Amino acid sequence: MTEAHALLALTEAMAEWANVVEKFLNNILSPKESHQEQLLGAMRYASLEGGKRLRPFLTLESAKLFKAPEKYALRVGTAIELIHCYSLIHDDLPAMDDDDLRRGRPSCHVAFDEATAILAGDALQVLAFEILCDPETHPDANIRVELIKGLAVASGGLGMVGGQMIDLVSENSDVDLKTITKMQTLKTGALISFSCEAGAILGKASNEEKEVLLKYAQDIGLAFQIADDLLDVLGTKEVTGKSTNKDGAAGKATFVSLLGVSEAQKRAESLTGQAIRRLDMFGDKAAHLKAIADFVVKRRA
Amino acid sequence: MTEAHALLALTEAMAEWANVVEKFLNNILSPKESHQEQLLGAMRYASLEGGKRLRPFLTLESAKLFKAPEKYALRVGTAIELIHCYSLIHDDLPAMDDDDLRRGRPSCHVAFDEATAILAGDALQVLAFEILCDPETHPDANIRVELIKGLAVASGGLGMVGGQMIDLVSENSDVDLKTITKMQTLKTGALISFSCEAGAILGKASNEEKEVLLKYAQDIGLAFQIADDLLDVLGTKEVTGKSTNKDGAAGKATFVSLLGVSEAQKRAESLTGQAIRRLDMFGDKAAHLKAIADFVVKRRA
Repeated sequence: MTEAHALLALTEAMAEWANVVEKFLNNILSPKESHQEQLLGAMRYASLEGGKRLRPFLTLESAKLFKAPEKYALRVGTAIELIHCYSLIHDDLPAMDDDDLRRGRPSCHVAFDEATAILAGDALQVLAFEILCDPETHPDANIRVELIKGLAVASGGLGMVGGQMIDLVSENSDVDLKTITKMQTLKTGALISFSCEAGAILGKASNEEKEVLLKYAQDIGLAFQIADDLLDVLGTKEVTGKSTNKDGAAGKATFVSLLGVSEAQKRAESLTGQAIRRLDMFGDKAAHLKAIADFVVKRRA
Repeated sequence: MTEAHALLALTEAMAEWANVVEKFLNNILSPKESHQEQLLGAMRYASLEGGKRLRPFLTLESAKLFKAPEKYALRVGTAIELIHCYSLIHDDLPAMDDDDLRRGRPSCHVAFDEATAILAGDALQVLAFEILCDPETHPDANIRVELIKGLAVASGGLGMVGGQMIDLVSENSDVDLKTITKMQTLKTGALISFSCEAGAILGKASNEEKEVLLKYAQDIGLAFQIADDLLDVLGTKEVTGKSTNKDGAAGKATFVSLLGVSEAQKRAESLTGQAIRRLDMFGDKAAHLKAIADFVVKRRA
């Protein structure tokens, strides 16, 4: 399969899975009598019809490597996506990144209000853990607890939230490549890594297999972030669906501001090459995961 | 034992348990190399040296009814307390209740800043679930998942967060006693109920026992809130350690504004009487739980 074919097949598979995730999310977030309308509205607004669903797709494809059922990967991937959605709501708040635009639409706190956005984020976070508790996620409670623990660590103070905090305190200060790398490894990398790890947990992968998959995830997580920084400089709002040149305006150091455009591009490509080679042990089963590595640096939004 | 003796014994037992909880929290929140300093600082600020630790105490006493080990009750009660602490941080934010004072000190967003407070709340929430995942919480993963599920439901969009949303949209609007009761049943009641339910889960209580305990918890939860509304009107900042007359200033309907002081006091006392009678089936083992029912309406802070 040529690289172009692989990317096309990936795009189709991702769109198909995004549809499945969308339906499941819509189901999970369907109105119940006892729901507070405005809260549920904000939760739906911030999580439906949104994004590429990269994280659930990583969970699906990782699970497939170990022949774990799709129905388990769907629930776990969706739980991870909910954590991602909650983090975007809170990150966009005026006190945080103060961003009015997300996925081509007004951010949650603009469409509703700040209080509702804070609460919707809080509720989406906890909903993720509720989904994982259900025996439909996996019949073995030990596996469910392992997934909950993994998601908690990846998204908590020593993971995603810790990364966002480093990002905030780094504004308008001189930070070096090491700090930026650590920040991004936590802020976006931890959840991307867990998306892959979750598939390995569901499929009861060996430690060696899990290790390889995690290293792959770290590579593409970092490449993804460098690509994001490049889009912030080179992209347009119309194409990315979010504000651009945010980092420069906020005085934030990024991979691009530290390395320059050309070197940042090289770094991203080197990381994806490395990520792809890591997956050789899985053979053709890893075709989509390999293509994702290309995709994350070639995407335009 | 006279009522005064029971209250004294309760106060001592609560203070003792609060110390145990404090030490455990301090341990859980001890600095690790990879911690972001400011984030951990805010998490510690908002959860250490604070409050009566009513929820962990309810878990302890409920667990004791069914001879469940204290060490399990400590971890579960502390997880519940972390959820309580995170909710206070977010509730105090300018976009929410905009409260500068909490437990006699500046609120978290005043002592740090809004962004840090939002993130500290997010991190404390997820830490609660992480604690529950550990086998030290209970050796049986099925029990751990049941606890996680229960805490997720009690604190989520159909529980605590849903109640806070109802509270916010009810400001400056005519609400009736039914709405206030529903709001409080979710906002504060859900977590208080789960504090008792958790003890029953740890102790593998029968459905009947669990049911009785939950009804008791609902009664004291509501009584607690009525007492809170009374303190808001009758208390002083110096004694309660938080701003008073907030509700009146915010144009919020409360049990007191709807019922009047005297009728609200009667209602609270009637609920506690009912709560105490419910526990008769547990005999002397429930002495502290019975005393708590008195305590929640007689406390001055």
